[in-house]
Amino acid sequence: MQPLTLINGSATRTLASSDRGLNFGQGVSTRIKVVGGRAQLWREHLALLQQGCSALGFHINAVEKLVKRDLGLIPRADLSIRVTLTAGLGSNSLVMPAEFQPTRILQIEPCHFAEPPIGGVEAVFCETRLAIQPRLAGIKYLNRLEQVLARSEWRQSGIGEGVMLDTAGVLVGGTRSNLFWVKQRELFTPDLSQVGIRGAMRSAVIRLAQQQGVAVHEVREPPAVLDSVDELFFCNSAEGILPVNALAQNQYAVGSKTLTGQLQADLARVLYD
Amino acid sequence: MQPLTLINGSATRTLASSDRGLNFGQGVSTRIKVVGGRAQLWREHLALLQQGCSALGFHINAVEKLVKRDLGLIPRADLSIRVTLTAGLGSNSLVMPAEFQPTRILQIEPCHFAEPPIGGVEAVFCETRLAIQPRLAGIKYLNRLEQVLARSEWRQSGIGEGVMLDTAGVLVGGTRSNLFWVKQRELFTPDLSQVGIRGAMRSAVIRLAQQQGVAVHEVREPPAVLDSVDELFFCNSAEGILPVNALAQNQYAVGSKTLTGQLQADLARVLYD
Repeated sequence: MQPLTLINGSATRTLASSDRGLNFGQGVSTRIKVVGGRAQLWREHLALLQQGCSALGFHINAVEKLVKRDLGLIPRADLSIRVTLTAGLGSNSLVMPAEFQPTRILQIEPCHFAEPPIGGVEAVFCETRLAIQPRLAGIKYLNRLEQVLARSEWRQSGIGEGVMLDTAGVLVGGTRSNLFWVKQRELFTPDLSQVGIRGAMRSAVIRLAQQQGVAVHEVREPPAVLDSVDELFFCNSAEGILPVNALAQNQYAVGSKTLTGQLQADLARVLYD
Repeated sequence: MQPLTLINGSATRTLASSDRGLNFGQGVSTRIKVVGGRAQLWREHLALLQQGCSALGFHINAVEKLVKRDLGLIPRADLSIRVTLTAGLGSNSLVMPAEFQPTRILQIEPCHFAEPPIGGVEAVFCETRLAIQPRLAGIKYLNRLEQVLARSEWRQSGIGEGVMLDTAGVLVGGTRSNLFWVKQRELFTPDLSQVGIRGAMRSAVIRLAQQQGVAVHEVREPPAVLDSVDELFFCNSAEGILPVNALAQNQYAVGSKTLTGQLQADLARVLYD
């Protein structure tokens, strides 16, 4: 299939230039993977969109019904769908219009994500830091400038992802993913109460680990903590779990016997809850 | 005249939904006031746009020539023009495409800004804080979520503007303006090396004050500093200088004999340099 865009349920690729998503970044997005017509992590994605709109000062009635109706219009194939909800058309003013019609954008592409390599990928630390903003922490709002700048720091195809810190020097996540590490068969991930995006796959991984009796800790730690851990991985909705074999001077265990490998193998159990 | 939008020089109000300005906030904007066909603060606006694109990782050849050509297409009237430059169409990926065509948007409206009231306005402190990000400090990139949230904190028409602090509790500016205060005939304004927008009118006010032999200090100060100052004002390109007569428990001098009043009266000297 060709890439397809649905805006408020109609096939079109153009958007009003007065949209508050463009002019103020007042919108949220999430990327949903669809396999054989079935949307993965539906419940998590929906919660992220709803919490996001609420944090950004607007409310959309019946988001679930609308997005489900959009999904009914597209082929039952393997797809990657970026869903964006914005505060809609607005005056060119910070003040939200009293009456507003939100904009709902589905950017639909064939799913081109390969299975993550079994041997893992190499990662790097990014220089670009993430600003600390508790008011918007966790939300995937449209401004992803810091991630764009961080991703521009490397060009080598051998590098799978970059680790980002916040301006206080604390671990937050990858440029397009959340971050986890394993120490003595326990799972750790950055606390995102100050900064970062609470991705749908992050929630699913935490849920899967807890179902399997693995302790999960949300922590604010400097990067030095990664000098003495056993395993490291990134995750996102499109790519699943991406094991890391090396970061800076450290090497990490990969493969089917690691906790990361077991979570990868069992991931399917939580994708369609 | 009716509001008019020019996108890459053509009159249209729609934009490709794959624009990186929407999807990643990768763009900058500035609002230019045009009086009788003459653009005010042209040099400052152009510098802001160019510095902004550069900070956001893209370069646009001949910005000045292109925007001047656009301005040649519009009526010689009193206008408010929001110029937006984005990194253009992109893959749905953080990685900038190797070849890119920037998007240039001019949103043109009749200028509806009244002269600021001579007696000044009342201001409030906003609860919403600005995240500290030295990497993007000074730049007016598209994400203005914090300002939208701050502006939603008051609805009373008697309030002219809100003062915003950063997450460290330091004064930054207004929701749509820069902030200045006067103590013993010297001018003070927040240092914007950590966070904030270096607006065109801010640069013009500093230049005007220096031309008149007034000392100007860029400082990082908590809001308590405003308890013992003589005058307070906001400024932006559309509204000029907006004197404040009251903020929290403090009252400030206004009128033609204040330094603020003199800067207002002399402002025309620097609008068309």
